[in-house]
Amino acid sequence: MNPQTLESYASGRWTRGEGVESSLVDPVAGEMIATASARGVDLKRALGFARKHGQGALRALSYADRAKLLGAVADTLAANRAKYESIAIANSGNTKADAAIDIDGGIGTLKYYARLGASLGEARMLLDEKPVRLAKAENYQAIHLMVPRRGVAIHINAFNFPSWGLWEKAAVALLAGMPVFAKPASSTALLAHEMVRDVIAAQVLPDGALSLLVGSAGDLLDHLTSDDVIAFTGSADTAARVRGHRHVVARNVPVNIEADSINAALLAPDAAGGGAAFDAFVREVVREMTVKAGQKCTAIRRIIVPEGKAGDVAEALFAKLKNTKVGDPRNEDTRMGPLVTRAQQAAAFDGIRKLAREADFVIGGAEPPALDGIDAGKAAFVAPTLLRVKDVKHADAVHEVEVFGPAATIVPYRDEKDACALVARGGGSLVASIYGEDQGFLARMVEGIGPSHGRLLLVEPAIASAHSGHGIVMPQCNHGGPGRAGAGEELGGLYGLRFYHQRLAVQGSTDLLASLQAQAAALH
Amino acid sequence: MNPQTLESYASGRWTRGEGVESSLVDPVAGEMIATASARGVDLKRALGFARKHGQGALRALSYADRAKLLGAVADTLAANRAKYESIAIANSGNTKADAAIDIDGGIGTLKYYARLGASLGEARMLLDEKPVRLAKAENYQAIHLMVPRRGVAIHINAFNFPSWGLWEKAAVALLAGMPVFAKPASSTALLAHEMVRDVIAAQVLPDGALSLLVGSAGDLLDHLTSDDVIAFTGSADTAARVRGHRHVVARNVPVNIEADSINAALLAPDAAGGGAAFDAFVREVVREMTVKAGQKCTAIRRIIVPEGKAGDVAEALFAKLKNTKVGDPRNEDTRMGPLVTRAQQAAAFDGIRKLAREADFVIGGAEPPALDGIDAGKAAFVAPTLLRVKDVKHADAVHEVEVFGPAATIVPYRDEKDACALVARGGGSLVASIYGEDQGFLARMVEGIGPSHGRLLLVEPAIASAHSGHGIVMPQCNHGGPGRAGAGEELGGLYGLRFYHQRLAVQGSTDLLASLQAQAAALH
Repeated sequence: MNPQTLESYASGRWTRGEGVESSLVDPVAGEMIATASARGVDLKRALGFARKHGQGALRALSYADRAKLLGAVADTLAANRAKYESIAIANSGNTKADAAIDIDGGIGTLKYYARLGASLGEARMLLDEKPVRLAKAENYQAIHLMVPRRGVAIHINAFNFPSWGLWEKAAVALLAGMPVFAKPASSTALLAHEMVRDVIAAQVLPDGALSLLVGSAGDLLDHLTSDDVIAFTGSADTAARVRGHRHVVARNVPVNIEADSINAALLAPDAAGGGAAFDAFVREVVREMTVKAGQKCTAIRRIIVPEGKAGDVAEALFAKLKNTKVGDPRNEDTRMGPLVTRAQQAAAFDGIRKLAREADFVIGGAEPPALDGIDAGKAAFVAPTLLRVKDVKHADAVHEVEVFGPAATIVPYRDEKDACALVARGGGSLVASIYGEDQGFLARMVEGIGPSHGRLLLVEPAIASAHSGHGIVMPQCNHGGPGRAGAGEELGGLYGLRFYHQRLAVQGSTDLLASLQAQAAALH
Repeated sequence: MNPQTLESYASGRWTRGEGVESSLVDPVAGEMIATASARGVDLKRALGFARKHGQGALRALSYADRAKLLGAVADTLAANRAKYESIAIANSGNTKADAAIDIDGGIGTLKYYARLGASLGEARMLLDEKPVRLAKAENYQAIHLMVPRRGVAIHINAFNFPSWGLWEKAAVALLAGMPVFAKPASSTALLAHEMVRDVIAAQVLPDGALSLLVGSAGDLLDHLTSDDVIAFTGSADTAARVRGHRHVVARNVPVNIEADSINAALLAPDAAGGGAAFDAFVREVVREMTVKAGQKCTAIRRIIVPEGKAGDVAEALFAKLKNTKVGDPRNEDTRMGPLVTRAQQAAAFDGIRKLAREADFVIGGAEPPALDGIDAGKAAFVAPTLLRVKDVKHADAVHEVEVFGPAATIVPYRDEKDACALVARGGGSLVASIYGEDQGFLARMVEGIGPSHGRLLLVEPAIASAHSGHGIVMPQCNHGGPGRAGAGEELGGLYGLRFYHQRLAVQGSTDLLASLQAQAAALH
């Protein structure tokens, strides 16, 4: 089969780039399935088109009208779901369960924001804070509104969620009235490409509301104005290049970054083996290590446990990990597939070797696993790999090296204070989860480790099987974290709309502000 | 009189830098009054001290307790007010009215946040959004909290408000529980230095809660962690160096920028000469041009008027400006003093010359004015300078060149759409004010020009004499603006606390979240 040539959707038409910038490969068989290039695509013109036609059209719509657009996008995608699953398996090495998180996560987030947007009604701006007096005069006040920005939302997405990453960002931007200019990671762009093809073909969005750049970003950032925004998900190195880009800095283009982080799961001192909290902890660590072969920015990397329980935890995790069926995701009994590329596999092994200098292997290792029917010379598999820190005092790599694959490390702690200090050594994370029987301990962790996180999951027995998971990003909740995690904020219900709006204090007469208030939809 | 040698307050003690980095000069007589240097001050140690002692102590306090600290700082400053006024006159060339804006603005903002903080009570975290369901299970929800960050707040302040700039930032950071590490602009640092001396001597703050760096910033930014934040006010060039600093970018240190912008005042088509809106417009433009000799980041630079009224407006402004008494602020009848330095004077003349290529002078010019008893070879005066654009279609400088002095330019517009387009050409501003009789026009401007502003003042006859002013930043209102203005957000009541907190989704059982909610103070 000839590899497919992916195109970009820019200035209202599908455009083929010159030559080949990158190849998309099936990470099981190593076979090339598509090529991508954006070379020669006129990005300045494409941005102008999106601003004029896309922003111009979206601006005229109410939140409720834009919410209907999101619903129509979701419906279009849902109608083609089976096709997307096959692509996710072939291009990303996803199991069906992995593919569901990506595909249904994207569709679900669109539907969530469609519902939320409908509740905002016919307004075209948001009320952030009600009028407040400013002077002795009773008829003079100030109100705080959020008004949609007039530019384009640049979305630079990561390889691990070609669907969810695209739509969780696009849903919020479109609802806010900003056209989307999305650049998926080339290595897994086939799914985003197919989805956008279907959405464009269905003609459910105004011209210019959605553009897709498949290939390298070229001079995209050089053409941004201060009306535009950038939301980036990916590695810290690329994030720094985007945030520090000379033109982006000079124009004060807002940048939201969501970078990988070294997330922790913490077992409370009181959680005894065999108890509901202990079991929930073990189950969640295994799930986080193996779902999407550990390629989630939210995955658990550090397993922080009372020093007296490190042995029990290692044993319980070993027992589950050794039975995890790794292989071709096309086989029904496969529980974990490969990483997305050989390059990612090499990077993961490199990271595992760094961790292993300060930790012992409980299971797994830094070599390709031998798997039935798989050519280890072509495939991108990494075995589930659990390590255990040798000497906590002299272990640095576990807090600094992120292995973007099915690897995690057990780190024992002495007491509550020590546990908090160890968690903070991650330098800022997207999420941590804490498992215990004692609500007091769980509550104390909010002050104890909250400042270095964007999200905490507190698991006590009552919700041990009811919670939504450590690594699953719910659209209702803040997604992002300080420091290493990028210092960004995404989603979180209506809060997510803020990034695509300008906050505005309006000072004026009480009755003029009352009429503005009546025109705006309430944020709270 | 020998010039005073300013010191830095770091690691809990006053420290003299080596040699002289810069001189502080009286801009009327040209006489040196102090010198500053921070060379050799151990900034890494000072930051560590502030994190350990300052953050450690503030963290343990409630918002109400920290609010009391702000009140005590305000009381200390109020007790020394007369001394500060003399310094503002000598070092900044302020009139008494100018000095009052700076000094009383600082004290007033501290008192405002002291009141606001008291209302937050004994809490140590903030409730941003109430619990929301996440799953079918009724007992599993998410809540959004704001928890104070664990680092140091770096405040880099501008020369024009050595008092207000210091305290408007410090009030919010201290209330949030973050120690302040303030760096005033050297040229006018005498006032900040004296105020901090008094506050430290009064022993009203915990050790390490307030540090002062007088002199160059040296390697300060290299020692920041991802727990720290930077709030910067000043020029776009320096702002870009801070925001684009390699270490700041690599650690994702949050940066808030408030830069100068080319703010507009807009006269509505219906505002006829002799009417209350027209008169309020003329009065406000003159006030903005002359208060602090136009050295306010919020000052009106572009006077946007219906083309048929440009002549009337020029005439009315001319009549008032020619009677503005410029001179030594020590004279009681002086209404406008000099710029703060000869360098600022040279930069202002340079800017005025650029404007004059595309505009005619109505009054003023690019040469030092001749003033009784003033040596023009030593002083830093700029006369009130009004220009009028020759050909709007070919005028660019008026939208791009900011003269940080008593200069503004009349720009005629054709119709409402043209007016909005002209305002937007400023590339993002802190504030615009609109003057008219028709509430419908004023309300339409919120959508029309709101997206490129952080604040709008809508002046209709009913509040023509009751409003708080185009250029006065009220602590209740958002301060900041997109694009050229830096894309920052400061103040705005409780909203200002966000920058010094980490936003945190907490997922857990309904009753655990209820207990967290009960511990937090509501943001809304």
